[in-house]
Amino acid sequence: MEKLLGKLIQESRDLAGHGRVADYIPILAEACPNDIGICIMDIDGNIHGKGSYDHGFTLQSISKVMALMLALLDNGKQKVFSRVGMKPTIEPFNSLHDARHYNQRIPSNPMINAGAMVVTDLIGGRGREKADRLLNLIRDITSNPNIDYDEETYLSEKGTAERNRAIAYLLKDLRLLDGDVEEVLDAYFRQCSIQMDCMDLAKVGLFLANRCKAPNIIWDDGEEMASLILAIMNTCGMYDFSGEYAVKVGVPSKSGVAGGILAAVPNRFGIGIYGPSLDQYGNSIVGCKIMEELSKELDLNIFR
Amino acid sequence: MEKLLGKLIQESRDLAGHGRVADYIPILAEACPNDIGICIMDIDGNIHGKGSYDHGFTLQSISKVMALMLALLDNGKQKVFSRVGMKPTIEPFNSLHDARHYNQRIPSNPMINAGAMVVTDLIGGRGREKADRLLNLIRDITSNPNIDYDEETYLSEKGTAERNRAIAYLLKDLRLLDGDVEEVLDAYFRQCSIQMDCMDLAKVGLFLANRCKAPNIIWDDGEEMASLILAIMNTCGMYDFSGEYAVKVGVPSKSGVAGGILAAVPNRFGIGIYGPSLDQYGNSIVGCKIMEELSKELDLNIFR
Amino acid sequence: MEKLLGKLIQESRDLAGHGRVADYIPILAEACPNDIGICIMDIDGNIHGKGSYDHGFTLQSISKVMALMLALLDNGKQKVFSRVGMKPTIEPFNSLHDARHYNQRIPSNPMINAGAMVVTDLIGGRGREKADRLLNLIRDITSNPNIDYDEETYLSEKGTAERNRAIAYLLKDLRLLDGDVEEVLDAYFRQCSIQMDCMDLAKVGLFLANRCKAPNIIWDDGEEMASLILAIMNTCGMYDFSGEYAVKVGVPSKSGVAGGILAAVPNRFGIGIYGPSLDQYGNSIVGCKIMEELSKELDLNIFR
Amino acid sequence: MEKLLGKLIQESRDLAGHGRVADYIPILAEACPNDIGICIMDIDGNIHGKGSYDHGFTLQSISKVMALMLALLDNGKQKVFSRVGMKPTIEPFNSLHDARHYNQRIPSNPMINAGAMVVTDLIGGRGREKADRLLNLIRDITSNPNIDYDEETYLSEKGTAERNRAIAYLLKDLRLLDGDVEEVLDAYFRQCSIQMDCMDLAKVGLFLANRCKAPNIIWDDGEEMASLILAIMNTCGMYDFSGEYAVKVGVPSKSGVAGGILAAVPNRFGIGIYGPSLDQYGNSIVGCKIMEELSKELDLNIFR
Repeated sequence: MEKLLGKLIQESRDLAGHGRVADYIPILAEACPNDIGICIMDIDGNIHGKGSYDHGFTLQSISKVMALMLALLDNGKQKVFSRVGMKPTIEPFNSLHDARHYNQRIPSNPMINAGAMVVTDLIGGRGREKADRLLNLIRDITSNPNIDYDEETYLSEKGTAERNRAIAYLLKDLRLLDGDVEEVLDAYFRQCSIQMDCMDLAKVGLFLANRCKAPNIIWDDGEEMASLILAIMNTCGMYDFSGEYAVKVGVPSKSGVAGGILAAVPNRFGIGIYGPSLDQYGNSIVGCKIMEELSKELDLNIFR
Repeated sequence: MEKLLGKLIQESRDLAGHGRVADYIPILAEACPNDIGICIMDIDGNIHGKGSYDHGFTLQSISKVMALMLALLDNGKQKVFSRVGMKPTIEPFNSLHDARHYNQRIPSNPMINAGAMVVTDLIGGRGREKADRLLNLIRDITSNPNIDYDEETYLSEKGTAERNRAIAYLLKDLRLLDGDVEEVLDAYFRQCSIQMDCMDLAKVGLFLANRCKAPNIIWDDGEEMASLILAIMNTCGMYDFSGEYAVKVGVPSKSGVAGGILAAVPNRFGIGIYGPSLDQYGNSIVGCKIMEELSKELDLNIFR
Repeated sequence: MEKLLGKLIQESRDLAGHGRVADYIPILAEACPNDIGICIMDIDGNIHGKGSYDHGFTLQSISKVMALMLALLDNGKQKVFSRVGMKPTIEPFNSLHDARHYNQRIPSNPMINAGAMVVTDLIGGRGREKADRLLNLIRDITSNPNIDYDEETYLSEKGTAERNRAIAYLLKDLRLLDGDVEEVLDAYFRQCSIQMDCMDLAKVGLFLANRCKAPNIIWDDGEEMASLILAIMNTCGMYDFSGEYAVKVGVPSKSGVAGGILAAVPNRFGIGIYGPSLDQYGNSIVGCKIMEELSKELDLNIFR
Repeated sequence: MEKLLGKLIQESRDLAGHGRVADYIPILAEACPNDIGICIMDIDGNIHGKGSYDHGFTLQSISKVMALMLALLDNGKQKVFSRVGMKPTIEPFNSLHDARHYNQRIPSNPMINAGAMVVTDLIGGRGREKADRLLNLIRDITSNPNIDYDEETYLSEKGTAERNRAIAYLLKDLRLLDGDVEEVLDAYFRQCSIQMDCMDLAKVGLFLANRCKAPNIIWDDGEEMASLILAIMNTCGMYDFSGEYAVKVGVPSKSGVAGGILAAVPNRFGIGIYGPSLDQYGNSIVGCKIMEELSKELDLNIFR
């Protein structure tokens, strides 16, 4: 396995040059496109890490997965999905045209920004408390109390977030947010700035692969929650590349613009990948390639 | 198993009253909403049929699955997906707003009408020949030479197809169809009018579940084709209910407005269901319910 | 006046090189971009023609003005505007996105293709009879019995009209056309192919400027019809350049892709211009410039 | 004239019951739907007021006209219209779908909120200074130094402006605003809260009708500015009713949700109307009716 991972990293390194590191805030622009890391954990507890697998990076959109988990724990399936849909959409993640659909009801799904803001609104607590509760959940799942916010990223995001502000105010105007707009946005920026490494991500993936069970965590509806979240990751997790990714890789995954990918193979593996160079969709260009190869090599495709 | 199927049919019969039989052409409106049938075939060749499982009905949109198969055989993956996407969309199946996306490129996916017309355009042969080749493929897969067009449905569809004509002429205007518009439409209406029963559908499902292998069929890329088609069915197969269906059922499926559902559980089952009463999305209301229960009872959810 | 017109033609000739002659059908592509003509008639019957003012060209979209006139005569204001709006739109003339608005009601206005098809549908008679009645109305208004269809243009348009077919079938699907789609389209293509020269256009303009009165024509509601049509020409007549044109020229006008412009200054002038080189909006590039200068020289701007 | 105005107010009073007073902020909801006022001033200085013609109300969207004037004075025509269009649009005034067009360029016109915010951004000065300069311009035009902000309206608007905030942040995200978003919004809310009566409005109307000339004001390009603004009022001034209004009334006008209408008949009249009951478009229901009748009685229609 170690050898396979090393080979995959080696082979994909050239690809990094074909993508671009996110640069809408300075701290993301500083990432080194050649840093590539991967960590795989299997259901029996074996861990395989390679490359910069212990290099920290911010979750960004990957946090939408754990935020959904927490909102479901706090509110139940029925309430959550009365306020956000489960529909994949062809609109980009930061779409305001999705607004067309709001007029009729609710954001399409919890993986686009508008839907994720509604999810954050649903998380118990006010302002920072929402984000802190999410951080604690992540620390529990990973048994890693050292995970924390990256304050510089948080402050940068908060200072240059015109589009997200536009989305949030629109949601408020349409009566789709309960809380104060700036409070919800603050929690949202905080959750995006949580910093983890590939091993942490692999643990979250394994938790999902293992039907939301961990030595220190037992949830009543864990099995249902896991399959629900994996199904949504599969249809909506890789921005508007989700459809192609489901065909090419066939593993429920979620990406973030800092270059992370969280993936879970039901009953088998949890996977965390890092590679900050992004493709046109905003997914790690190296991460997608590695997942495609890994899916073939280890026969991970759930549609096969 | 027989008992389980009987129970599911029994329990879901009431639901039929909450939906509506399609009525845009007379022959569909004549369907009896209480006719419910199901057929399951497992990978070892065991067949279980219950209810009106041998009642014939037209494929309608289910034909898009087999048409995609044939277009892939004729053209290869690369050519097909240069002309139609793999992206799930929030637009309804008969969307012309999908046109917004055409302006930039191509129809979103092969399961909405616009994409399916491009697929039909890609199938080898001209006019009726396209449909005849598809019919022969279906006869081969099911080893059932008696499958045929329902001429009345074909003629009715052809006579009342303003929206599909609008879509096809728009595609032509955008240079997205090679063939003559009326020829492509004719083949498209023919393929929709192919008549099958639940057992035939289950055989097609089993063929997909079995990686596009059958005693009389061996394709080089069968395994890849199967996973590709199942992934697309999962994200796009149940109209704009596909996202919720993936969460609730988790089995790659494709529905048609005559009330059929084709489903495939990789490496395990092929399933055909019939129930002409439709929900708001155009899916068999009874079929969706039965699939949901069946998924729980037999642990079919691929995300679990 | 003759001198002024000569000067305007002279000065604008260079502009023709900055536009493009329409080329979607061969016969339009054959037009000479340097052919420029203008004819002005005042309310006292004085006629001033210059350049290729007696060169024939097809009406194309200009026919929408006279078609609206005839539909109003046949049906009355109330009926016509229950089926087509009076709203200027930012969509281009051949928009299918206007469809979004159809879903709620009706095409935006009678000057975009969708609205013009509804207007043609409203004209009395079937198929060719609709177009023949319109031709006769135009012959009456201009007292010119020699005006006729250009058969070559008519046949070409009819053969390469995918987008207009898409629009018409969509209208039919939405129950916005009463007549047979192909019949309405046929009448629409015929009306677009009526051939006139600048003097004929100026006569139509004068008829509008003179409150729909002519020696041989007296209509009860002529005054109201004239102001209604001029108001719609002002907000919708120059495709999506209408807003800028109203600011820069301030004279109700209608253009066609063959290069004609019909203009009317209430109580003062009727104007016909020809210049086949088009700007990005599909308006005669020379015609717009001449109208702008003419408006300043003769103080024609109704907002001044 | 007095008699005519009295009759028009009398006849239209019943209509007020068919509309609704704006209620998105409390102070607007307090308006009495039966308060109706009108003031007409002719070019010779005669003034005719009737009903509640000296009742104060806030300008709301009417301020967009004077803001455009000031932005043009500060920046010139070319700069202003490089940042906002002159195109009428079918979108409602508070549209975010207009965003589709932003992606390509700029807001459609200065009379929808997005365009008006860009105009406010263009006005010289920062924050409150922008609004104060506009207030001073209005005081000059009306020779009424008592005109002022209504602080309660200003504060209410500012506190419940999610949609306008969404629009402004979107504009900022698209690099269409230079200034700080909250500063521009503050100036925008201030300008909307300027309080005037019908006589003040009539004076502004007369100023426009008189080619932007007044005893105390002489502008070099006054004539051009007047025709430009009147043309835009005609195509865009009455929200998405502008097209119908141009047909039925034919007088360049601008309405506000507090119930005011500003109208100008070139070279003849300035008109101010008040009637807080609104129709479905957000225009004074009584005001539109009075303008329609007045247009007929005094032959004001510029298309006639």
